[in-house]
Amino acid sequence: MYSRGPEPEPKGRYEMQDTEFDAQLGNKRRIVNNTLQRLLAEQVDVDGDLQESLVYTLKAPGKRIRAALALWCCEVISGKISHDAEIAAAAIEMVHTCSLVHDDLPAMDNDDLRRGRPTCHKAFNEATAILAGDALLMLAFEVLAKYIAEPTVAVRLIRQLAEAAGPAGMISGQMADLKAENVEGTEELLQYIHTNKTAKMFRCAAAMGAICGGAKKNQFDRLCEYGLKIGLGFQIADDILDVCAASEQLGKTAGKDARAAKCTYPAVVGIERSMEVAKELADEAVVVLKLFEPKAGILRKLAMALLERTR
Amino acid sequence: MYSRGPEPEPKGRYEMQDTEFDAQLGNKRRIVNNTLQRLLAEQVDVDGDLQESLVYTLKAPGKRIRAALALWCCEVISGKISHDAEIAAAAIEMVHTCSLVHDDLPAMDNDDLRRGRPTCHKAFNEATAILAGDALLMLAFEVLAKYIAEPTVAVRLIRQLAEAAGPAGMISGQMADLKAENVEGTEELLQYIHTNKTAKMFRCAAAMGAICGGAKKNQFDRLCEYGLKIGLGFQIADDILDVCAASEQLGKTAGKDARAAKCTYPAVVGIERSMEVAKELADEAVVVLKLFEPKAGILRKLAMALLERTR
Repeated sequence: MYSRGPEPEPKGRYEMQDTEFDAQLGNKRRIVNNTLQRLLAEQVDVDGDLQESLVYTLKAPGKRIRAALALWCCEVISGKISHDAEIAAAAIEMVHTCSLVHDDLPAMDNDDLRRGRPTCHKAFNEATAILAGDALLMLAFEVLAKYIAEPTVAVRLIRQLAEAAGPAGMISGQMADLKAENVEGTEELLQYIHTNKTAKMFRCAAAMGAICGGAKKNQFDRLCEYGLKIGLGFQIADDILDVCAASEQLGKTAGKDARAAKCTYPAVVGIERSMEVAKELADEAVVVLKLFEPKAGILRKLAMALLERTR
Repeated sequence: MYSRGPEPEPKGRYEMQDTEFDAQLGNKRRIVNNTLQRLLAEQVDVDGDLQESLVYTLKAPGKRIRAALALWCCEVISGKISHDAEIAAAAIEMVHTCSLVHDDLPAMDNDDLRRGRPTCHKAFNEATAILAGDALLMLAFEVLAKYIAEPTVAVRLIRQLAEAAGPAGMISGQMADLKAENVEGTEELLQYIHTNKTAKMFRCAAAMGAICGGAKKNQFDRLCEYGLKIGLGFQIADDILDVCAASEQLGKTAGKDARAAKCTYPAVVGIERSMEVAKELADEAVVVLKLFEPKAGILRKLAMALLERTR
């Protein structure tokens, strides 16, 4: 059995380079982890092994960047983190975690290591990993329907999440990513994969935070644009890191993309051009933030921190 | 590519014995199939192979009993099938279809035949089947959030579906079912598996139909009770059929439960007692319907038709 005590902060492995930023991300991570544990503990009469697998996957030391983005966007708009934003952030993390659990399966990326520990199907078995992923998806929508007080807000949040992660979003990105192995990649294909697999979930996180903060239309649109851009930048950085970093540093198997002949930015345009594109996206994201100054400091730092990952 | 024309009615294989009931179920099936096709066609920019797998799985000639139950419950309450009920019925069917696609995977029940055709992972591949299932789950919540006009209704429907299918519902039932292979079954374990794996989704279908019809509290409670009872009866009938029927008749591999040493009603209490329990459940379900007479004729027929399956 896994203890249900507070999750220890991940050490070093996932930290970014600005220590002040690290501390702020760490604060948000604690909020998200506590919310996830609380929501999971509220589920009654769950099969024991399923419950154990859910605790295991949700307690893995993830960065929680998408969830933190939602909390920060709520804060930038309203000056505080609302109860709704905490639920929304947890829901995003549940869907993201499902995508990791299913992505790691033998029939998909076939990975043994995730967030520094054995993947769910390695720690348990394949059937449990399939069901745990399904359970996380369903739980995400359950908590949004159950704990968001205002139905109009709940419906907007649910629609954002389902559209971003669904067939016309993340799932198509994962599908296209799998098929792109051993295929001559193009920038157009990369753009489709990165937008769907990663950037739409970042945009969704920003959108959900904005909704919880009570954003006006133009604020909402701007935060969505910011989210999409840093999402694209994050995925490029991730591709570059896979080439340059060691497994220990990543907490997952490094160099896997190249071995699988995946369609990545470095493979298609080279490392140098990849870093340039990431820099352009971060710069554009910062420009979008002008509407919110002087309150957007943390979002500016996030854009830059994601860029730092590539160095 | 699969044609998007209207789905031909399944011939014989899934029909029940009362021809008038068959015709009524067929009418509802046509509504559900049309709604599913329309909702799928509205998804834009979906990866081509993913789209093909979704069309394939949703066009498989399923009985659509859960969806029909939702439509009938709406009709019993309000005298008509509302637009909301059509969306709700389609959403239930999407979640149910996901559970079949994932359940058939090699790591789960490892089945090659479903609804008379190759299972999704046989027709495509495992990765596609995993992602198609995920996409169907997300799409179910998307259409509820997007197309139900009244947010309070949408939130109630989403909560019902997520709770019934999630970790404290269907997923725990599937997990317990998998673990029950080669284990000495008890009636208590069977009750847990059947309630979670099957009956909660039947109750959910009744609940969603009742909500769409504008049911009062006592009407809602009664239809939930009815749904739970026929769901339990349906699963017992399914277990009995697996023992008694041929694969061709079932549209899926017959006799699989026994070969897998599954925990089923016939295995634990014998065929005769199983038929008795199914009969008791159908009778109890009919008693619950008294509140709705004389309008509950079709629900009475449904309870009896499910029972007929055991003969």
